[in-house]
Amino acid sequence: MSVLPVLRIYAPLNAVLAATGLVAVAALTTPDMSGRSRLALAAVLAVIWGVYLLELAEKLLRRRAGDVRDRTPAIAIDVVAVLVPLAAFLLVGTPDRSLYCAVWLLKPLRDSTFFPLLGRILTNEARNLIGVATVFGIVLFGVALAAYMIERDVQPQKFGSIPQAMWWAVVTLSTTGYGDAIPESFAGRVLAGAVMMSGIGIFALWAGILATGFYQEVRREDFVRNWQLVAAVPLFQKLGPATLVEIVRALRPRIVPAGAVICRKGETGDQMFFVVEGRVSVATPNPVELGPGAFFGEMALITGEPRSATVSATTVVSLLSLHSADFQMLCSSSPEIAEIIRKTALERRGAAPKG
Amino acid sequence: MSVLPVLRIYAPLNAVLAATGLVAVAALTTPDMSGRSRLALAAVLAVIWGVYLLELAEKLLRRRAGDVRDRTPAIAIDVVAVLVPLAAFLLVGTPDRSLYCAVWLLKPLRDSTFFPLLGRILTNEARNLIGVATVFGIVLFGVALAAYMIERDVQPQKFGSIPQAMWWAVVTLSTTGYGDAIPESFAGRVLAGAVMMSGIGIFALWAGILATGFYQEVRREDFVRNWQLVAAVPLFQKLGPATLVEIVRALRPRIVPAGAVICRKGETGDQMFFVVEGRVSVATPNPVELGPGAFFGEMALITGEPRSATVSATTVVSLLSLHSADFQMLCSSSPEIAEIIRKTALERRGAAPKG
Amino acid sequence: MSVLPVLRIYAPLNAVLAATGLVAVAALTTPDMSGRSRLALAAVLAVIWGVYLLELAEKLLRRRAGDVRDRTPAIAIDVVAVLVPLAAFLLVGTPDRSLYCAVWLLKPLRDSTFFPLLGRILTNEARNLIGVATVFGIVLFGVALAAYMIERDVQPQKFGSIPQAMWWAVVTLSTTGYGDAIPESFAGRVLAGAVMMSGIGIFALWAGILATGFYQEVRREDFVRNWQLVAAVPLFQKLGPATLVEIVRALRPRIVPAGAVICRKGETGDQMFFVVEGRVSVATPNPVELGPGAFFGEMALITGEPRSATVSATTVVSLLSLHSADFQMLCSSSPEIAEIIRKTALERRGAAPKG
Amino acid sequence: MSVLPVLRIYAPLNAVLAATGLVAVAALTTPDMSGRSRLALAAVLAVIWGVYLLELAEKLLRRRAGDVRDRTPAIAIDVVAVLVPLAAFLLVGTPDRSLYCAVWLLKPLRDSTFFPLLGRILTNEARNLIGVATVFGIVLFGVALAAYMIERDVQPQKFGSIPQAMWWAVVTLSTTGYGDAIPESFAGRVLAGAVMMSGIGIFALWAGILATGFYQEVRREDFVRNWQLVAAVPLFQKLGPATLVEIVRALRPRIVPAGAVICRKGETGDQMFFVVEGRVSVATPNPVELGPGAFFGEMALITGEPRSATVSATTVVSLLSLHSADFQMLCSSSPEIAEIIRKTALERRGAAPKG
Repeated sequence: MSVLPVLRIYAPLNAVLAATGLVAVAALTTPDMSGRSRLALAAVLAVIWGVYLLELAEKLLRRRAGDVRDRTPAIAIDVVAVLVPLAAFLLVGTPDRSLYCAVWLLKPLRDSTFFPLLGRILTNEARNLIGVATVFGIVLFGVALAAYMIERDVQPQKFGSIPQAMWWAVVTLSTTGYGDAIPESFAGRVLAGAVMMSGIGIFALWAGILATGFYQEVRREDFVRNWQLVAAVPLFQKLGPATLVEIVRALRPRIVPAGAVICRKGETGDQMFFVVEGRVSVATPNPVELGPGAFFGEMALITGEPRSATVSATTVVSLLSLHSADFQMLCSSSPEIAEIIRKTALERRGAAPKG
Repeated sequence: MSVLPVLRIYAPLNAVLAATGLVAVAALTTPDMSGRSRLALAAVLAVIWGVYLLELAEKLLRRRAGDVRDRTPAIAIDVVAVLVPLAAFLLVGTPDRSLYCAVWLLKPLRDSTFFPLLGRILTNEARNLIGVATVFGIVLFGVALAAYMIERDVQPQKFGSIPQAMWWAVVTLSTTGYGDAIPESFAGRVLAGAVMMSGIGIFALWAGILATGFYQEVRREDFVRNWQLVAAVPLFQKLGPATLVEIVRALRPRIVPAGAVICRKGETGDQMFFVVEGRVSVATPNPVELGPGAFFGEMALITGEPRSATVSATTVVSLLSLHSADFQMLCSSSPEIAEIIRKTALERRGAAPKG
Repeated sequence: MSVLPVLRIYAPLNAVLAATGLVAVAALTTPDMSGRSRLALAAVLAVIWGVYLLELAEKLLRRRAGDVRDRTPAIAIDVVAVLVPLAAFLLVGTPDRSLYCAVWLLKPLRDSTFFPLLGRILTNEARNLIGVATVFGIVLFGVALAAYMIERDVQPQKFGSIPQAMWWAVVTLSTTGYGDAIPESFAGRVLAGAVMMSGIGIFALWAGILATGFYQEVRREDFVRNWQLVAAVPLFQKLGPATLVEIVRALRPRIVPAGAVICRKGETGDQMFFVVEGRVSVATPNPVELGPGAFFGEMALITGEPRSATVSATTVVSLLSLHSADFQMLCSSSPEIAEIIRKTALERRGAAPKG
Repeated sequence: MSVLPVLRIYAPLNAVLAATGLVAVAALTTPDMSGRSRLALAAVLAVIWGVYLLELAEKLLRRRAGDVRDRTPAIAIDVVAVLVPLAAFLLVGTPDRSLYCAVWLLKPLRDSTFFPLLGRILTNEARNLIGVATVFGIVLFGVALAAYMIERDVQPQKFGSIPQAMWWAVVTLSTTGYGDAIPESFAGRVLAGAVMMSGIGIFALWAGILATGFYQEVRREDFVRNWQLVAAVPLFQKLGPATLVEIVRALRPRIVPAGAVICRKGETGDQMFFVVEGRVSVATPNPVELGPGAFFGEMALITGEPRSATVSATTVVSLLSLHSADFQMLCSSSPEIAEIIRKTALERRGAAPKG
């Protein structure tokens, strides 16, 4: 629970620092730059390095104190981000010294939840991706061989060996088309046309595999995450497991920053909300505060009437929202959930006629 | 209900006006143009501006009268489309004055239903799209660094700094391939080949994410829209909610302009229609007019016989059509719907043996 | 039924004739060609035109006799394919006369089942495709405007007007990258990088829409076609509609040319077959011939034993095949189908212990 | 069963050999190479050829002995890989002799499971792929004709005939964009813009078809493979077929090399494992060995407690893993499976309180 706000602060800071550092590294390589600018950029790098050092030190201390349970590869990235530039500063000569700060490229990998997802997709689809890469390789060599045999007498300086023809083949097969090597004979041009179409086909196969893998993994991941969140809502614990699965599929998680308005009095709403973590305040004449397990905004689904009160987040809040259309689908397949929500809503309304 | 025909008139007019205006803006920037043509184009811009002014004035008046409930951002676009060219005319010098009419690019955003859809997809998939953009950025910087180190001695004027190498990297990674910077060393060309393949992979990942997001959002949106339309058909209100969900999934909405023929006597049909809004006329010996909630063409699904009468739209009509194949799927999973349609159809036939 | 073999003959002939004709048209435009070759190519065009004339005449005659029920647009294409070259021959001067034979491009549209499918997809997705095209247009104009303002002073001959900048924008946004116009300023290059990434995104959106539309329409079309074929198999008519829908989803249609072997004695098979149209002969000691509605190869699914006899097609046969894996899925969800197939198979085996 | 480890050894060896050979073939075509390097590369080719000869001889011998049941096309590839270079060595002159070793490109096709999958997808989608290729062809010819008519007077040396215009059209339609032929007239540039957009559309259609076909075929293939593996697990044989189908869908196959650790004591696990083939050893105080049909790691799913023992593979093991999220989905839809696993787990725990 308490790890969430910390992550929210560190991840963007890390990204901004890394991006700034990399821009400075890039700028330092431009030839026509005054000594003063060069110094300023080096100072920027030094500052970022210092921040990383402090961050690492703090993390190691807190880890010792048992406050943070960080994964080992994340700490390893932090260590490398500090040590590599230090070693470069001590061992490498001036002009290329700053290039070693490019190791900060690894920093965004640290906190991202996308890279583990990507890793799982690539693992799941490894067999097919290797298959397509093999097809790519075979086509590439075959095409280069054919182009070499067709064009070697016409343009010996551009198609005079298979490696040269392969350069043309990869530029064409990926539809990059630099235009530095172009077949001139009729047969060569027919071949080139076929290569371009094959390139599009291989590309499409690749897209198909990644799209399929992505869809399956994302659907699975969403299910696992929502399942864990749903377990924290008491209302749902009265339901049988089959209904629970359907609810899990219908809910959409959302994180709201502290102070933000979640719904405004008088608006017509099309969703209700469940509080998973954090607290929200309902601006009724006697303001009410709701915590984990509470829900609000359900009248929008049942009667369609406008919001009866403004609700805003008092802390960072993790919510699950249930949209009107999903609620209707849910109710039609399992009437018990509709019944529970309706009954609880009416009870509450009886208790608080203003709310 | 009454907002539909108005939208139908304004949206295309807006698109045509905006397109004409933008063509005029583009044409005004061509250097070799006679003063007379220049004047004519400026007049076109002035006329369009005038139309926009009138449109805005009318909308503000009607809004005051409470006739139109327009969304605030839409009105904001209308105001900006009038004020920005006016300000440019008053404050900016001659040659660039007309460029400010490019603000009319915003006009098509006003009435489109696609942009909100696109917005929702991008919001839903934000995490993954940011992830892919991060991968793109990391690969871009890494590749530029590698290319800089490999090629900086061979081609100092093209790969002499990381920003220069980055230009090559982005042109290659996106498989654009201008051909202005091309690696010459063997290692550089192997790197370029790997970059092109990575570019295709990133592209494919992007396509996979957008395809997945698009599919989910469109399926959801179709459900919501059809659900609202189905609520207007009395026949369906006898059915339980589970059956209703299946019907909603099977129906396809369609808008028919006034005067158009919907089905022609003697043709073999493969769909029946439900009127949601507007009126249709059935050309039987005693012509009949059907309004919202009525249905026709059902014999095509039940007996497969040719259409017994021509039906045409007397007003703009919003229909739901049920195709033969979908009807068969529907009947097999919930026989009650088949029963209802069959019974009603036979009753009607008994009442009107010609129809 | 009898229309099938005729189509099988005409469609490829049409494609070959049209392709030959178009190659001849293309060859006739090459400048360095002897008068003799030119004459030969003209003769080829004349012959094809003659064949098309005969085909049209025969079709019109048979249509009059009521033998063929051809769709009107198909006949219209046949008429145009004859009349346009004739008119060009009579009215147009020599060099460009043959170009009018390019109207034969329409011929492949005539018999294809893919083009109606494509048409339905484009119609279904029209709203989204127009939306993406609008996004493309807006981005194109916006980018051209930005490039014009950034680069007009640096390269007035290439970015001196919005239309010129638009040419660069479309070449870059589609990642074609001719390399004839390349931004030189730093801001221009950053813009170009953003444009390439947007281009990839728009492309991906396009792919996502078409993939979604394609998947839905193909699934629907397969269902309709299989449903019609299944209606011809007596065995299945004992089943309830819900089971029937599942069978329709599991079967895969296949057309086998006359004389081909469908399964060979002693092989291990993983599918059974239903005859929809045509006849097959089973090479048992007393050869048996099976017609529409019969099935064979079912022991492969039930006992997994090798094929007990070779079966070959005596006419063009239209089959439905049921694979082992699909059969197992089918049996688990509706045991009655398994029961029917098993019982019928064992009865038959009792009656013919060799078969 | 025994064929598995052999395949594991041969397939990567074959790939490495073929890749090495092809690199040598490519290197031999580079003009500026010393006689010594040339000799070394020829020696590499000879060695690879020798290995292939030995491999073929061994396979033919073992095949005679009935040890290996290899498919005929696989043997045919082995024979061709030996005979073609031999024939080239005997019959062809020096410089091009080594090119014939390019026949080794076929070797990776031999053991891959991806190519049969690809073949099935292309067969299933043949009709649609041919349809898109036809669209491509028609657009290509139409565009070339238009470009020829627009640009032939402006650039007779580049658009002077339809074949020349077609070269431009294919380079543009595939978004390759070499930049060797670029329309100069205004109409030509508008045409080019439309061509680029069409190219993207055709590409997207292609991707949509392949993605759809891929998804369907992979899902089907996974089902068949898992079904066969599940048949070897006794625990599951108590279940009804409907439940079995759901389990098959939830399980994920995995092959673990001999000696590898499958789960480590004290870790929190999120999956349980079923042994399909091979043996694993459980490092409890009295080490236990489990064989085909056994399962372990189930407490992770039921109580969520950390692994109670380290499990490692003693032979190459084929496992099925059941993830926590999939288990929850499974339990909610068919409580009997949860019951069976829970009961068996608790019995085992009672019998072995340390395990």
